[in-house]
Amino acid sequence: MIRIALDAMGGDHAPREVVLGGLAAATELEDLQLYLVGPQEVVEKQLDGQTYPQSRVKIIHAPDVITADDSPVMAVRRKKESSMMTAIRMVRDGEADAAVSAGNTGALMAGSLLVAGRLGGIDRPALTVVAPTFNGDNVVILDVGANMDAKAEHLYQYALMGKIYAREVLHKPGPRVGLLNVGTEENKGNDQVRKAYDLLDNHLEGFIGNVEARDVMDGVADVVICDGFVGNIMLKAIEGLSAGIFAALKDTFSANLKSKMAAAMLMPELRSLKKHLDYAEYGGAPLLGIDGVCIKSHGSSQARAIRSAIVTQAYRYASKDVNGQIIRELTELPLQE
Amino acid sequence: MIRIALDAMGGDHAPREVVLGGLAAATELEDLQLYLVGPQEVVEKQLDGQTYPQSRVKIIHAPDVITADDSPVMAVRRKKESSMMTAIRMVRDGEADAAVSAGNTGALMAGSLLVAGRLGGIDRPALTVVAPTFNGDNVVILDVGANMDAKAEHLYQYALMGKIYAREVLHKPGPRVGLLNVGTEENKGNDQVRKAYDLLDNHLEGFIGNVEARDVMDGVADVVICDGFVGNIMLKAIEGLSAGIFAALKDTFSANLKSKMAAAMLMPELRSLKKHLDYAEYGGAPLLGIDGVCIKSHGSSQARAIRSAIVTQAYRYASKDVNGQIIRELTELPLQE
Repeated sequence: MIRIALDAMGGDHAPREVVLGGLAAATELEDLQLYLVGPQEVVEKQLDGQTYPQSRVKIIHAPDVITADDSPVMAVRRKKESSMMTAIRMVRDGEADAAVSAGNTGALMAGSLLVAGRLGGIDRPALTVVAPTFNGDNVVILDVGANMDAKAEHLYQYALMGKIYAREVLHKPGPRVGLLNVGTEENKGNDQVRKAYDLLDNHLEGFIGNVEARDVMDGVADVVICDGFVGNIMLKAIEGLSAGIFAALKDTFSANLKSKMAAAMLMPELRSLKKHLDYAEYGGAPLLGIDGVCIKSHGSSQARAIRSAIVTQAYRYASKDVNGQIIRELTELPLQE
Repeated sequence: MIRIALDAMGGDHAPREVVLGGLAAATELEDLQLYLVGPQEVVEKQLDGQTYPQSRVKIIHAPDVITADDSPVMAVRRKKESSMMTAIRMVRDGEADAAVSAGNTGALMAGSLLVAGRLGGIDRPALTVVAPTFNGDNVVILDVGANMDAKAEHLYQYALMGKIYAREVLHKPGPRVGLLNVGTEENKGNDQVRKAYDLLDNHLEGFIGNVEARDVMDGVADVVICDGFVGNIMLKAIEGLSAGIFAALKDTFSANLKSKMAAAMLMPELRSLKKHLDYAEYGGAPLLGIDGVCIKSHGSSQARAIRSAIVTQAYRYASKDVNGQIIRELTELPLQE
């Protein structure tokens, strides 16, 4: 049985969509024990009239709620009885195998680090996204915002964690790991990435060298490594441009009667493309390097995305003992030379 | 008379499209003196049958050519008689007011720096793009790849240069300058940007604080400041995603007969959107901080983009004495406190 603690109060569409997503996952996976964490009455009300495997769904009462506006550190310190912090604590205490939340990203990162702690041998956890690529596949990108000043050694650790995640959770045999850089040649980039290149080249099986940002979405690598500052900016640039292009297309299509008619005919195809590119649909962003399993769902998650975060990420992550493999493979590679 | 030295041999479509773009600019601007720099015979052949103001167009013979594959530093050292290096040397020697090239970016940056030198008071030049925004305006982004390890002081200098460029060349009164960061709050980001924030906040009129990558294309600022590593990755992510989305749209539209018909009806609107987003159309990327005017056109430039680089950038840059204003405004702001 895999036990998942779901923060029922996190995200723009909580508790409604979060609870529905959780129930869908519990219905789908027969060895899933779902803990819906939040104020008893609020969560109970969401369950009214729903059909779900009652023996495998349980409410864990947590009276407080961390909001999107809360300062992460203050939230972690002062809102110990919040749904998010309770879910994380359940993981730390061995009462759950994984925590899933669509709430405040900063609070989730800070809370996971402070409460669950770091995985043995890992200096810095990394916020990790699984982004869709144009060839119908996907790419693991980390770090996209957990740490702002990463050293080369941290980039090496990200690479190892991302590789194991891609292999075990995304079922990619022999993942190709690329280092995000301004050019593909070996000596490109700043001091940090040149040092990381050497470490990866010497110690990481599957390292394919530098990759450029323009090729990431084409699937040039299965795993792309970068520091949290650069990764966050790349991800947000992609998010913003994608949203902007689809909004501009909408404007373009409603320009006149002819374009409106044509656009109506194309709508199913356009929707499907937009959905394919929307990584919020893909579920969650795992925090790799935490001593436990902690998945951040996009704040805008609807039931489907929550279900996906549980089924395709939290459940697989916990059942494959990804963290155990990270510890074992990390130990085998000496960093100091 | 503004004198422009155009590298007739730079870019994927040289010399044909480059020469045609140059002639278009010379025809349009009556006080433009155009120097077409390249092998005499090759350039001469391109002029056959063209109508243009003959008294204001002159070939400057340069026998050698720097290719896209040349190593920048080697090219600068060994190909002194190349069209690109000759154009830069003409600027240094006061024989031209600006150099324009669609050739090897690295060679153009290295050549400008080594031959023309830095502008007084500027420590590092910055490669600067003018990118379209979704609100029909544009945004100046620098540095997008000239320097890989910028300090806070360099970011301050980029900000000042970008601001003056936006004001004088793009005719934006009181440009709003934003610092690219992972969040809008003051204390966000890595050590480098936090220090830069302080400098900009204390010394740069028009500084509006941190801006996020997802808002850059929405026109949240007129000038966006970042180090060359981050800027290059953001720009290439935007380039790659934009190309990918339009390719995916094309596939989507040719899925079946119905979608093909609908897409045909929308083609004019789609082309216009794609063109609006393609910053290669906008002409050139100025190298700010060089003692002279040096504009890099996109390698894929057709005649129209070359014309645009000359008319909307090189010509205005040189005629407004942008560099003189940078020197004057920089001197007025003491950096050491």
